[in-house]
Amino acid sequence: MFVHRRDVQIQWGDCDPANIVYYPRYFEMFDDSTSIMFEAAGFSKQDIVRKYGLVGIPMVDTRAKFYIASTHGDWITIESRIESFKRSSFEVTHKVFKGEALAIEAFETRVLVGRHPDDPARLKSAAMPEEIIAKFMQG
Amino acid sequence: MFVHRRDVQIQWGDCDPANIVYYPRYFEMFDDSTSIMFEAAGFSKQDIVRKYGLVGIPMVDTRAKFYIASTHGDWITIESRIESFKRSSFEVTHKVFKGEALAIEAFETRVLVGRHPDDPARLKSAAMPEEIIAKFMQG
Amino acid sequence: MFVHRRDVQIQWGDCDPANIVYYPRYFEMFDDSTSIMFEAAGFSKQDIVRKYGLVGIPMVDTRAKFYIASTHGDWITIESRIESFKRSSFEVTHKVFKGEALAIEAFETRVLVGRHPDDPARLKSAAMPEEIIAKFMQG
Amino acid sequence: MFVHRRDVQIQWGDCDPANIVYYPRYFEMFDDSTSIMFEAAGFSKQDIVRKYGLVGIPMVDTRAKFYIASTHGDWITIESRIESFKRSSFEVTHKVFKGEALAIEAFETRVLVGRHPDDPARLKSAAMPEEIIAKFMQG
Repeated sequence: MFVHRRDVQIQWGDCDPANIVYYPRYFEMFDDSTSIMFEAAGFSKQDIVRKYGLVGIPMVDTRAKFYIASTHGDWITIESRIESFKRSSFEVTHKVFKGEALAIEAFETRVLVGRHPDDPARLKSAAMPEEIIAKFMQG
Repeated sequence: MFVHRRDVQIQWGDCDPANIVYYPRYFEMFDDSTSIMFEAAGFSKQDIVRKYGLVGIPMVDTRAKFYIASTHGDWITIESRIESFKRSSFEVTHKVFKGEALAIEAFETRVLVGRHPDDPARLKSAAMPEEIIAKFMQG
Repeated sequence: MFVHRRDVQIQWGDCDPANIVYYPRYFEMFDDSTSIMFEAAGFSKQDIVRKYGLVGIPMVDTRAKFYIASTHGDWITIESRIESFKRSSFEVTHKVFKGEALAIEAFETRVLVGRHPDDPARLKSAAMPEEIIAKFMQG
Repeated sequence: MFVHRRDVQIQWGDCDPANIVYYPRYFEMFDDSTSIMFEAAGFSKQDIVRKYGLVGIPMVDTRAKFYIASTHGDWITIESRIESFKRSSFEVTHKVFKGEALAIEAFETRVLVGRHPDDPARLKSAAMPEEIIAKFMQG
């Protein structure tokens, strides 16, 4: 499966009075990483939303385990990987490394959501496009 | 065990281009809820940090399952509860209700962290103060 | 003119390693205050956007002067006031009080934005609805 | 004077229901840009805080004018420049470019803050280190 890695420098505003990353910021980084991974595979979120008539790709289930804290100035590497595809959802794992050490492990399940054809105000799940699955399977 | 409920109105800036809450914002709300629950029990974070010489109460493991989306203007109720105490950690569950419906379920495990007596730059876990446990147990 | 006051408690996650509010959080609070002021006047952002076909009410110019810092646990009062209306924009001032002391002064100019009738992908300014002006003028 | 440029890609979570950047996110980007500019000049915030015994470099006055909106996927260039130094404060301007177009202009005045020698709980302004001024003047 396609694996995406990116380096992120922790910034002052990511940190709390304990001088370590305020953990909701990591979920922002993971959300960015999933988008950036898709873009790297040729499917930017702007394109996905427009092309397939989606509203978004919201989170349905996420978990993170934090082993090593980081502070501003630190560089971390976020390694993201799609673990599986289902009809309208997929699973991603994110591993955060600080040097060689595994600092955080996270997973997420997301669902593709579009508008209901009979009532645009209602949301409904949308099928995972074949070409996205194909691209990540070969990646 | 002590249960704490608070009502939160979703704001414009909590929401993403899909017009629903950007999920990292929920983790901010849960972090606030845990602090506010402790304050309601008589232990504000300012007091805890000062009195027991702590640096913070960082997250070690958290998970959230999202069932119903919310948008700006919506009111949600966050119901938080301490599930258990260990030597230097505790578990909290957060349930988000939208009217009667369960919209999100989350849990978190946090650890009390202070400074190492031999090296203030190093962090180490700190024992859960007895009076906090006693207060929540009776609550 | 209509004046709106609300009390806000600074939370742990609002603060940075200096143990004071990370200033972009104040802009989030001001954005919330403007929305909440409109809602208190009978015009929730959800209603405004739907009823007048707007996309949003983006910021065009904002400034804040910070006199007194705050930290988690502190309560502040945000006092918001519409200063003037123009054809498609309006000005708001926010004053933050910590007890009796003036802690922050901010102003903002916002514009009402809708979709261009010939090209929904393009944004264009929209006229300020008369009923909103009338309500705030009398308030 | 030293000029620093960096490219930033707007992410999904930076944007609001109008599908444009929620403006407080720009202040986070500007705060990051000031830190990154100092680091590029050889003075990381971690070093500054430790070496000169500072608590932080808080904002005292900031303003931003927004001319062109951006959405997720867009790349912007943030060009930051120190405009002047005073005894314990300095001014920075940030210009955001979208391609060739000027999208945002911002300025900020920050102050160096340390602890009061007689009472570590009290904050007081600290003199701007000569070596930092010298470096930026020559840059």
